[in-house]
Amino acid sequence: MSASVETKRHSLAHVLAQAVQELYPDAKKAIGPDIENGFYFDFDFGDFELKEEHLRDIEKKMKNILKQNQKFERYEMSVAEAIAKAKNVEKNPYKVEIIEDLVAKEGITTVSYYRNVTQQGVETYEDLCRGPHVEKLSEIDEQSFALDRIAGAYWRGDSERTMLTRIYGLAFDTRDELDAYRKQREEAAKRDHRVLGRKLKLFTLSDLVGSGLPLLQPNGMIVRREVEEYLWNLHKDRGYLRVWTPHLAKEDLYVTSGHAGHYLEDMFVVHGGTSKEKFHLKPMNCPHHMQLFADNQFSYRDMPIRYFEPATVYRDEKTGQLSGLTRVRAITQDDGHLFCRVSQIREEVSSIVSIIKEFYTTFGLMEGYWVSLSVRGEDRSKYLGSDDVWNLAEGALEEAAQANGLNYRRVEGEAAFYGPKLDFMFKDAIGREWQLATIQCDFNLPNRFDLSFVNEQGEREQPVVIHRAISGSLERFMGIMIEHFAGRFPLWISPEQVRVVPVGEAFFDYGREVLSVLRAVGMRASIDDSTDNLGKKIRNGEQAHVPYLLVVGEKEMNARTVAVRDVRSGNQADESLDAIVSKLVTERENKSLSSLLA
Amino acid sequence: MSASVETKRHSLAHVLAQAVQELYPDAKKAIGPDIENGFYFDFDFGDFELKEEHLRDIEKKMKNILKQNQKFERYEMSVAEAIAKAKNVEKNPYKVEIIEDLVAKEGITTVSYYRNVTQQGVETYEDLCRGPHVEKLSEIDEQSFALDRIAGAYWRGDSERTMLTRIYGLAFDTRDELDAYRKQREEAAKRDHRVLGRKLKLFTLSDLVGSGLPLLQPNGMIVRREVEEYLWNLHKDRGYLRVWTPHLAKEDLYVTSGHAGHYLEDMFVVHGGTSKEKFHLKPMNCPHHMQLFADNQFSYRDMPIRYFEPATVYRDEKTGQLSGLTRVRAITQDDGHLFCRVSQIREEVSSIVSIIKEFYTTFGLMEGYWVSLSVRGEDRSKYLGSDDVWNLAEGALEEAAQANGLNYRRVEGEAAFYGPKLDFMFKDAIGREWQLATIQCDFNLPNRFDLSFVNEQGEREQPVVIHRAISGSLERFMGIMIEHFAGRFPLWISPEQVRVVPVGEAFFDYGREVLSVLRAVGMRASIDDSTDNLGKKIRNGEQAHVPYLLVVGEKEMNARTVAVRDVRSGNQADESLDAIVSKLVTERENKSLSSLLA
Repeated sequence: MSASVETKRHSLAHVLAQAVQELYPDAKKAIGPDIENGFYFDFDFGDFELKEEHLRDIEKKMKNILKQNQKFERYEMSVAEAIAKAKNVEKNPYKVEIIEDLVAKEGITTVSYYRNVTQQGVETYEDLCRGPHVEKLSEIDEQSFALDRIAGAYWRGDSERTMLTRIYGLAFDTRDELDAYRKQREEAAKRDHRVLGRKLKLFTLSDLVGSGLPLLQPNGMIVRREVEEYLWNLHKDRGYLRVWTPHLAKEDLYVTSGHAGHYLEDMFVVHGGTSKEKFHLKPMNCPHHMQLFADNQFSYRDMPIRYFEPATVYRDEKTGQLSGLTRVRAITQDDGHLFCRVSQIREEVSSIVSIIKEFYTTFGLMEGYWVSLSVRGEDRSKYLGSDDVWNLAEGALEEAAQANGLNYRRVEGEAAFYGPKLDFMFKDAIGREWQLATIQCDFNLPNRFDLSFVNEQGEREQPVVIHRAISGSLERFMGIMIEHFAGRFPLWISPEQVRVVPVGEAFFDYGREVLSVLRAVGMRASIDDSTDNLGKKIRNGEQAHVPYLLVVGEKEMNARTVAVRDVRSGNQADESLDAIVSKLVTERENKSLSSLLA
Repeated sequence: MSASVETKRHSLAHVLAQAVQELYPDAKKAIGPDIENGFYFDFDFGDFELKEEHLRDIEKKMKNILKQNQKFERYEMSVAEAIAKAKNVEKNPYKVEIIEDLVAKEGITTVSYYRNVTQQGVETYEDLCRGPHVEKLSEIDEQSFALDRIAGAYWRGDSERTMLTRIYGLAFDTRDELDAYRKQREEAAKRDHRVLGRKLKLFTLSDLVGSGLPLLQPNGMIVRREVEEYLWNLHKDRGYLRVWTPHLAKEDLYVTSGHAGHYLEDMFVVHGGTSKEKFHLKPMNCPHHMQLFADNQFSYRDMPIRYFEPATVYRDEKTGQLSGLTRVRAITQDDGHLFCRVSQIREEVSSIVSIIKEFYTTFGLMEGYWVSLSVRGEDRSKYLGSDDVWNLAEGALEEAAQANGLNYRRVEGEAAFYGPKLDFMFKDAIGREWQLATIQCDFNLPNRFDLSFVNEQGEREQPVVIHRAISGSLERFMGIMIEHFAGRFPLWISPEQVRVVPVGEAFFDYGREVLSVLRAVGMRASIDDSTDNLGKKIRNGEQAHVPYLLVVGEKEMNARTVAVRDVRSGNQADESLDAIVSKLVTERENKSLSSLLA
């Protein structure tokens, strides 16, 4: 059995430390774990400043070490011995602290070490470590890893303590995987939504407003409105009703919902300026929607009740984790809650699934998607609600998944305590996977809010709640879409859809006529009536990612045509004014993914 | 010269106290001012509990006193004498406190009294009072006033102190005015949006969410969405761009804007759950919009820039003042900010005025409207910005008012320190006046945020900001519209627009056909396929304020017609299916105020 990639990564961290030790004998080792896509190791280089350019030598040394095909050997030592060794032999305060911490927290009496031994039996390296490691370094392909970059990292993540030097490495099972990852990352960097967001003037981050609180510029708001209106169009004929709830609520609401118990740290606290009354910013919409339902006396004839509210919720994410549109504190969920009978779950879930499929097909994300059907684990005591109801709900979700031909996997033990769920994973244009849509059954909230409707027997019956989000968060979805499309949006969501480019002033009038025809059919169109030359105008249009440039000159004016430049494909063609308008309208109405001249 | 209505009201307060004194000699007087629409007087009745039924006797006594045609006489007394009199003769601790307070605050040495004297020279009443009063009570028409109600009121409004009994009276110059006011108030009570809001299930107030934070039910959200979309339609072809900004910002933003200086008490304070970072909920959108503008490098060619954002802002109104939708803490403004050159103010204001006229004409509110043009007062030192700019801006607003034929009054000294403005006052269906739309020039914020664009000379030029709101607050506007229309909305904003009413089960199929035809043209329609009899179905439709009930039975099914009941006018008519659908669509598209059969 070959070692897992995580084990290889961790072993490479030791190889990295061995290489550093040989090249920089004064460097003190701190810790070196495996991480997603690779590994890192933190060192205290003292007064020496390690730079990116040194990585090449270290990497070369690592490859040499791999060639030696060392073995990993594990052995144990008493805590007292280990501390003495770290203090007196290694003179490494980090290791001393690690051991003392382990003693304090876990009450251990021995610690384990891993040492590397060459074929010739020479010990080259050892480190305090829990393992596991590869048996022999020959298990690691020397082409499958690469040192990546250096960064500063506080010891124990504490900004009051020493700043160490962290060396990051990438590592995979094979060189191909490493290359693929690097290519994907390179591609992702080109598509970085923070860079494109600035370039295309989609959103603004302001130090005065605060981190994680992006402001949407007009261009960004066009994209968001199109997506939001499309979402609503997918819902409105399926019996959903729009509602609106405020962004605040008293703590009482979250005590009743149970969020005050385990979610308080992520919630913003609000105090009145004069009244001093205490509130919370809503971290989700469900408790408010429970209150909307509770203020009605519904009968079984009214069920299901379906509320839709694209609403901004606020969560106190740590400042260090905030980034662009994908990690924010203001999260606009395309939220919805259904209140239905257990017997109605399957049909309702089917209806939501059909929305999800239509939505993600439109954005070209259905290739390579998969769905996690999260059901109960073996320990049934962890879950709220009767066995009967759980069986029905899990069955209903699975039947809906089957009926809709979903590519799903049943994952035992992944259900929330309050009900089973379907989570949708989609792959973007460069192969990254994102969890986006979700459908969750909830037996807990209707119980905590004591919700009911009157059934056929005139008795109070408790509904099931289904939470559902299609895009998840509009901010995060927009961030992902910017990168998925590399900022070259389909026509229907492009902020500027068409730009008329007269080759000279003599054709401004005809250009304006073209413009007014485009605007008359609701196209977001502009005209470049600057004094720039044609080349510059075209470059500007391309830079602004306008999908179509309609160039007009003498020939076009006389023939009442336009010279179409399809910016996404780079192709060109001549079209009559009527034809291009009708083709553009069709492309927009179809929410087409491919461009006219692709 | 006859006395002002305020003077009469104040004199009636004394007459009320005189009547109470005669009927309840042990009652101690506190204070009795004139107020809007009348007057009140606070009394300490000791152990006696005054009830509404006693008011008739007191009012009768007051009318008797008026018949005596007493004179009011003013005289003065030293503070020492007055305190001695209040303490020893009147034994009235309230008057003692009032005099002592006046001494402490204003350093007075004498106080004035008013006494009433009959034709026969008999002194009937006297009270510590600043006046003024009518000369003789014959100036007051005994039919022009009425006692209204009693209420508890803490002495000095302090809930730690004695609860007094407040008697309210209504008073006007004439009986007709009194009658008109009472009728308006009665009509207003019938239209109370809090009552209709519950009956028509438009919104919900929840103790768990908090006061002043209404939740919109699906019906309310339909009304709001229609109004909001209409507002956006009025803006989008006039160069406005939609933007979105978060509901939070760091205090830094409000320090820069200046709001932190004088608005802090009304602002909600927000703290992170873990991060402990401090923010404020935005009490207005302007500072955020300044940040959107500042993140661009605009040239004079780009100006004006027009941002539109219907956004919810939060203000910490006192709990006691919160009511329904009209006094709330969550205020969704149909906000907009324009950034323009001084020379562009007139045209931009004209464009806003045209939006306001179209919007309020649609809601039937242009009759009896007037506009306050608020300009500087004499003391020019109170205003920010140069004389030149002020003259241009005031002139531009006035020219725009004239060019649009506005019914405006120039009000000196009512301008804000940051610029002149136009405030729009509208009268609702029962004659109440509401200040709704506003257009304000602002020379301050662009200065504080150091905004600029590049002018023709390549220099930085500071724009003027124009704040504008059309409906003001969507919550308050909805509350006013509920009362203006008495819950009988025009078709285009009615939550349920048409209800099909089959007279029996045999006609359900035809009814459903009618329903599907209505829904195919986007009408919000339903069918009453219950087993209720026709009378009950019609009453239910009327109770739900559905504008049109389409009754279908044998005759209608055979002739493919419907029997239309126009619920607002009470009229009925037969129409072919085609004709009614096309008439309903026309009424909806025209946003018509009158119903089909009116």
